[in-house]
Amino acid sequence: MISAKYLAKKVTIVEVGPRDGLQNEPHIIPTAIKIDFINRLSKTGLKTIEVGSFVSPKRIPQLSDSREVFSGIQKLPDICYSVLVPNVQGMETAVASGVTHIAVITTVSETFSQKNTHCSIAESLKRIEDIIQIAKQHSIPVRAYISCVLGCPYEGEMTIASVVNLAKQLWAMGCYEISLGDTIGVGTAGQAQALVSAVSTEVPIQKIALHFHDTYGQALANIVACLELGVEVIDSSIAGLGGCPYAKGASGNVATEDVLYLLQGLGIETGIDIKALIEVSRFVAEFTGRLPRSKVALAKLGMS
Amino acid sequence: MISAKYLAKKVTIVEVGPRDGLQNEPHIIPTAIKIDFINRLSKTGLKTIEVGSFVSPKRIPQLSDSREVFSGIQKLPDICYSVLVPNVQGMETAVASGVTHIAVITTVSETFSQKNTHCSIAESLKRIEDIIQIAKQHSIPVRAYISCVLGCPYEGEMTIASVVNLAKQLWAMGCYEISLGDTIGVGTAGQAQALVSAVSTEVPIQKIALHFHDTYGQALANIVACLELGVEVIDSSIAGLGGCPYAKGASGNVATEDVLYLLQGLGIETGIDIKALIEVSRFVAEFTGRLPRSKVALAKLGMS
Repeated sequence: MISAKYLAKKVTIVEVGPRDGLQNEPHIIPTAIKIDFINRLSKTGLKTIEVGSFVSPKRIPQLSDSREVFSGIQKLPDICYSVLVPNVQGMETAVASGVTHIAVITTVSETFSQKNTHCSIAESLKRIEDIIQIAKQHSIPVRAYISCVLGCPYEGEMTIASVVNLAKQLWAMGCYEISLGDTIGVGTAGQAQALVSAVSTEVPIQKIALHFHDTYGQALANIVACLELGVEVIDSSIAGLGGCPYAKGASGNVATEDVLYLLQGLGIETGIDIKALIEVSRFVAEFTGRLPRSKVALAKLGMS
Repeated sequence: MISAKYLAKKVTIVEVGPRDGLQNEPHIIPTAIKIDFINRLSKTGLKTIEVGSFVSPKRIPQLSDSREVFSGIQKLPDICYSVLVPNVQGMETAVASGVTHIAVITTVSETFSQKNTHCSIAESLKRIEDIIQIAKQHSIPVRAYISCVLGCPYEGEMTIASVVNLAKQLWAMGCYEISLGDTIGVGTAGQAQALVSAVSTEVPIQKIALHFHDTYGQALANIVACLELGVEVIDSSIAGLGGCPYAKGASGNVATEDVLYLLQGLGIETGIDIKALIEVSRFVAEFTGRLPRSKVALAKLGMS
């Protein structure tokens, strides 16, 4: 039951549009527009923005300019600008670039790990260990993503136990937050709640982030079910930026505007100005040449 | 908390696409296509379909052929085909047409009532009383809609007490089910749950239907919050048919496919075949010339 007793008073929205969103967009966005985009996000009240990924340009051309983007954006003192780091090489770039917060990623699906990062889950954990070692030397906090937690495009359903075990290891390795990714958006409310509840036996609920995709329209329902457990961190993407590379025609990350509308309705504080956010949605619609994938943005902007 | 203890084992989906959906579509769909559409819906496992409205053709040209549609469709014995009836004249048409189930509608907003039906709420209840009198003579069960329960385009927020009071009256008048309509889709999960919980003190929870629009993307989240109270009836519209006349660019009723996907994930029985339903979404996309407003349909059909 939704009750103030269980709900967090304050929730942090982690804006992943510039990274997870643009990474899955069909078109490559010019560096200057990315910088303008992030600078506009910085003025909405968002406190955490993932601005790019220091990954091989060959692997993800959409993010090949992340280094320039990171150095080009205006960094407001009270905002955490993080970068995804896939390996030691990327970590060294992060350190050299003066990045203060990083994120690492692994997955609960062995097949997804092989196809997506050409290594086993165990090998990806070793990579993460090496990254964390460098991060510790520079006191850089490390956030961990686990993908496919509610389903894999190759293996189908994942077991709760395997996600719990992986989250427990990443937490023990020193990651400060574990973001649970429903990468293909197949999960429904009961499964999402059961999973987060189970993970919270190994990782404090305040340190678990929800990273849900809206491929099947379930993301907000899943978020509500998990807010009931006391979750305090939600990843989302403005204008629902990002597609789903595993399902043509499917949408990507849940839209920040829609999550914010929900949280405001629940009386949960975020510090974000929804009007300012929707103006950024308008900007995103301009540079993507596509309607926002946010129903709140469409309704407020009267777009169709 | 979502737990089998609270969730219904079986939920009835009331398909309102042919009425509430088409009523708010910009184009008038030919009678033959409407009949084909409803006949296809009849083969999906749906048990209740609202097929039209016996309203003045001047008021709603989109439904001016409801009488022909009702007489033209193939009526399967185990399916309830209902018609919306706005007044005694419409009720007489219903009786003459052999309609077995009807629905009436009122609203909790005085301004909405005046602007939408040119009468006060009290007058609309009098009309409903007259309709029910005729219905009783022919043993026709009457379902009642209350619109604007979570917000009015003119008055803004509505009080829970006023909705409870109206629902109590309609129940006392002999309506067998009270459908709570978030006509402009502004409600969020906490408000929806609080409202349904309050109404359930006057109307049995099994007799309360959720009629949520997805204007702000909140419908499924609101449905989950209310399923936790034991709700057993949900109104939805295939392919999210229907717009929102009060917000340009906004979507209408929550999509039946997305509701069904949620219910299946929760292990709740509906008797509906999602594959068959999605084939009807494809048909709807053809005759509307528009992509389905269902993320499940878009993902399953690979449309974009």
